[in-house]
Amino acid sequence: MAENNPVNVAVVGATGAVGEKIIKLLENKDFPVKELKLLSSQRSAGKKVFFNNQELTVEEAKPESFDHIDVALFSAGGSVSKKLAPEAVKRGAVVVDNTSAYRMAEDVPLVVPEVNESDIQSHNGIIANPNCSTIQMVAALKPIQEAFGLSRVIVSTYQAVSGAGNQANEELSNQTKQYLNNEEMTSELLPVKGDEKHYPIAFNALPQIDVFQDNGYTFEEMKMINESKKILHAQDLAIAATCVRLPFFTSHAESVYVDVEQDGLTVEDIWDVLKGAEGVTLQDDPGTQTYPTPLSASNQEDVFVGRVRQDLDHDKGFHLWVVSDNLIKGAAWNTIQIAERLITNKWL
Amino acid sequence: MAENNPVNVAVVGATGAVGEKIIKLLENKDFPVKELKLLSSQRSAGKKVFFNNQELTVEEAKPESFDHIDVALFSAGGSVSKKLAPEAVKRGAVVVDNTSAYRMAEDVPLVVPEVNESDIQSHNGIIANPNCSTIQMVAALKPIQEAFGLSRVIVSTYQAVSGAGNQANEELSNQTKQYLNNEEMTSELLPVKGDEKHYPIAFNALPQIDVFQDNGYTFEEMKMINESKKILHAQDLAIAATCVRLPFFTSHAESVYVDVEQDGLTVEDIWDVLKGAEGVTLQDDPGTQTYPTPLSASNQEDVFVGRVRQDLDHDKGFHLWVVSDNLIKGAAWNTIQIAERLITNKWL
Repeated sequence: MAENNPVNVAVVGATGAVGEKIIKLLENKDFPVKELKLLSSQRSAGKKVFFNNQELTVEEAKPESFDHIDVALFSAGGSVSKKLAPEAVKRGAVVVDNTSAYRMAEDVPLVVPEVNESDIQSHNGIIANPNCSTIQMVAALKPIQEAFGLSRVIVSTYQAVSGAGNQANEELSNQTKQYLNNEEMTSELLPVKGDEKHYPIAFNALPQIDVFQDNGYTFEEMKMINESKKILHAQDLAIAATCVRLPFFTSHAESVYVDVEQDGLTVEDIWDVLKGAEGVTLQDDPGTQTYPTPLSASNQEDVFVGRVRQDLDHDKGFHLWVVSDNLIKGAAWNTIQIAERLITNKWL
Repeated sequence: MAENNPVNVAVVGATGAVGEKIIKLLENKDFPVKELKLLSSQRSAGKKVFFNNQELTVEEAKPESFDHIDVALFSAGGSVSKKLAPEAVKRGAVVVDNTSAYRMAEDVPLVVPEVNESDIQSHNGIIANPNCSTIQMVAALKPIQEAFGLSRVIVSTYQAVSGAGNQANEELSNQTKQYLNNEEMTSELLPVKGDEKHYPIAFNALPQIDVFQDNGYTFEEMKMINESKKILHAQDLAIAATCVRLPFFTSHAESVYVDVEQDGLTVEDIWDVLKGAEGVTLQDDPGTQTYPTPLSASNQEDVFVGRVRQDLDHDKGFHLWVVSDNLIKGAAWNTIQIAERLITNKWL
C-alpha cells in the first residue's frame, strides 16, 4: 500500500474495541497515512494513543473535524454515523461506516471486498461495512454461489461477546469469576445494553443478539438476512438465521447449511472452490481432527472453513463451519480493506 | 408411582454423572423400589451412597449381581452394557440402557415416552434410552410431525460439557481458571477422551462431539440422525445435524429448523401444538425477552421451546430453539420414565 499517495485519515470511535484494531491495522498494513486524526465522544477525548511511534491525542468528533480529511473510518455507533458521516462527506471525505446506519440505504454500497469489490465505485461518499456475522458468511458463500449457484441458506451462529463491545468482555469475565466463587452473577449489559432484561452469559447461551423486531426475529438475524442478499446480489436467495451469543471473547462461529443449485456435487467440489477463494482458508480434515475454532481463528485476518459435509439425505445440501475474528475480518480489517481498494482503484 | 407393586432395581454406573441423577430421581419420584442395588466398576466399588435415608454400598457389577433384579438401569458406558445387559436379561431383568450399545439394534425399542411409549411393549429384555441431544429434539418435533407432517430437519446443537461426564466439568473449570490467570490451558479430555488431539473448551467452541466416522460426520451427529428417524418412525424424513460442544456445564440447546408438510401454517399453529405437548414447555415471548437458556433449563425435567419463527422466505420453514437438561430429560429422567411405563403398563 505504501507506494500510493498518502491520504488524511480520520478514525471515529478511536477508543472503542473496533477503533483500536483499526489503528493497529493502519500501522501494520503500511496504510498510506499522511495525517491521522483520532476522534471520539467528548467523554473519551483527551486520551493518548500511539501510532507509528507518535503520540496522538484523541479529539472530540465535530463536523469541523473532517476538514481536509480524505478517508473517514466510522466505528462509534449508528447515531454518531447518522449525525457526522454526512458532515464528513460534505467536507470532501469518503466515509467507510462500520455501523448499521447506512447499510441498507439504496445509494450506499455494502461491501466485503473479496465478494463485491466493484460495488465500491458506485459510492456517493459513504460505503458501509457489513455486520460481523454477515461478513464471514458471505466470504464463504460467494465462491460456492459463483461456481454452483445457491438456492437456500440456513445459518445458526455461535457469537463472541466482544461483538457487544469491551464492556461485554468485562461482564463475561466478572460473571465467570462470580460463578466459580459460588456468588450470584451480576447481569447489567447482555443480551442488549438498552433492553429491559439482562441475563448471565457466563456458562450460558443467549438466543438474542440485538433487539427483537416485530416479526419475532432479532435485529442481528435480520441484518444477516438482508445484508447477505444485498452483498451477494441475490434478492431471491432464501436465507434463514438464528443468532446466539456464547461465553467466549473473540471470533464468531457459524453452522451454515446451503442448498446448491447444481446437481451431482461432492465435498471435494466445495473444497476446491473454497481453496481458491481470496480471504478464505480451508481447515478441514476429520482424520486429523482439523477444523477451525474461535480460539484458533482469533487474531487472524482470514475466514476459516471446516466440517464441509454433504447432507446424507439431500444431495444438494452441504454443511459448512465458518469461523472468523469478529473484530478483525468482521470489522476493522474489512473496513481497512475497503479503504485500501478505494485508494488503489482510485475510486476516492 | 407408589401404588404399584415394588420391584427390585439395579443401577449400573451408580457413581457417574447420570447414575447419581437416577438415584436422586428414584427417590424424588417415589419410584416403587423394593430393593435397590448400586453397581459400578471395580474402581468405584465400596463407595457409600444414601437412598431414602439408608446408606447403601456400591458393589462391583458382575453377572450374578442381577439375580432377583426386575429392572436394571445401565449408565456405565457401551462396553459395560454390551457385556452385562445380556447377563441381566438372562436372569429375568428388564434393562433400560442409557448407552449407544443397543440403540440401533432392530429388536431393541428406542424410546422417548412422550413420543413412542407404545414401542416399549415390543421389547425383548432391553429398551434403549436415546442420546441426550436426540431426546430433546424429538420431544419438540413429535407434536409438530403428528399435527402437520415433517419433511426436513436441520439442527445445529449447543451442547454442555457434562455430556462428556464429570471429568469434562472439571476440565472446563480448570481451563477457565487458567485462562483468567493468563496461564496456558491444559487440555487432556475434550473433545473426545480417547481421540488423538485435545483442544481447550474454555472460552471456545469445538465442532466435534464423539469420534469422526468415515463419512466426515461425528458419531454424535450420526446418532441424532439415525436415532431420530427410528424414534419418529420416519425413515424418509431428511435430517441433517451439526453438533458443537460449548463452555457451559449443563443443558443442551438446539437451533432446529424444520420444513413442515402442511401449507399455510403460522407461528401460532406451532405454538398451539407445543402448548399441548406432554413434557414440553413453551417459553416464547419476544416482547418480554422470554426464551429458554441452558441456565434456565438446568435441573428441570421438561424440554423447553422458544424462538419459534416462520422462515421469511419459505412458508413451510420454521425455527425452534430447544433447550433441556442433558443429564435429566437427556438421560436420567427419560430412563426413569421408561422404567415407570414398563411397570404401570405391566410390560415388564
